[in-house]
Amino acid sequence: MTRILGIDPGSQRTGVGVIDVDDAGRCTFVHCEALVLLDAADFPARLGRLCEGLETVIDGFRPDEVAIETVFMDKNASSALKLGHARGAALATVVRRHLAVHEYAPRLIKQSLVGRGAAEKAQVQHMVRLLLKLPDTKLQPDAADALAVALTHAHMSATALRAGASVALLRRRR
Amino acid sequence: MTRILGIDPGSQRTGVGVIDVDDAGRCTFVHCEALVLLDAADFPARLGRLCEGLETVIDGFRPDEVAIETVFMDKNASSALKLGHARGAALATVVRRHLAVHEYAPRLIKQSLVGRGAAEKAQVQHMVRLLLKLPDTKLQPDAADALAVALTHAHMSATALRAGASVALLRRRR
Repeated sequence: MTRILGIDPGSQRTGVGVIDVDDAGRCTFVHCEALVLLDAADFPARLGRLCEGLETVIDGFRPDEVAIETVFMDKNASSALKLGHARGAALATVVRRHLAVHEYAPRLIKQSLVGRGAAEKAQVQHMVRLLLKLPDTKLQPDAADALAVALTHAHMSATALRAGASVALLRRRR
Repeated sequence: MTRILGIDPGSQRTGVGVIDVDDAGRCTFVHCEALVLLDAADFPARLGRLCEGLETVIDGFRPDEVAIETVFMDKNASSALKLGHARGAALATVVRRHLAVHEYAPRLIKQSLVGRGAAEKAQVQHMVRLLLKLPDTKLQPDAADALAVALTHAHMSATALRAGASVALLRRRR
């Protein structure tokens, strides 16, 4: 059993999602929430709150691995920069807790969950609910994105594991 | 006496500079160094090392206030994003240590030290050495920039203090 923490960093809200994946690759829902940073006193205070919230989740749920989206390079440099700040604070927190971070491009996450790299957000959300057997209530979008990247990491690891197993099998057959 | 920590964040090297400023606004050099992050295993590990190094400086020198440059918006979005990550990790570390952060635009730092917003880096370095009575050896550039932003904060605080004192004096005279 491996516990995966997915993070969808943002300077207004940061989504976190925790799932367990067993040796057969089956995923079960553990936790998700959006850390709301908007009402902090200023921008540095938001980053402080992000780290604090993330540490609470890491210490409470003790994940084995962490998955995070790579940055979607926005045409708007200012918003990319704000996202960079949030992502930097999040990555530093994870590394300080001695956890390995795996990064996935947005297209790969969509491809992995929906089968199409250009899938819509609603489809990704739908698949997150379906795969984790969540009730048909609306997930907070950032929390859903965090679960999506955690699921992607689970799938990619299982695929890598199977590939590794096949290689091992082939080697044994030789 | 107030101790100021200046930070010049970067994902390859992060400069830190510590100065003391007395009630008359006189500044004395305490410490400066460049945290070298380049040889970390990967980008997240660099951010982790940045935070770790910064915490060591904060815990060792116990500054009262922190000053940092605002981001110079690069035409290169990718380098701005990397800088954003480093700056976010640095700001979060400072806030987690319950220190107030003051941000200064690059132009204001040059204006404050050299008297011209378009001053060259070498001139800023020269003034840093002069103001802090440092020997005429070459300062590491990022460490010098960190001292420059710390000095700017010292000057701005002294100016604000004088302005505040004048207002108080005027009020008393009424």
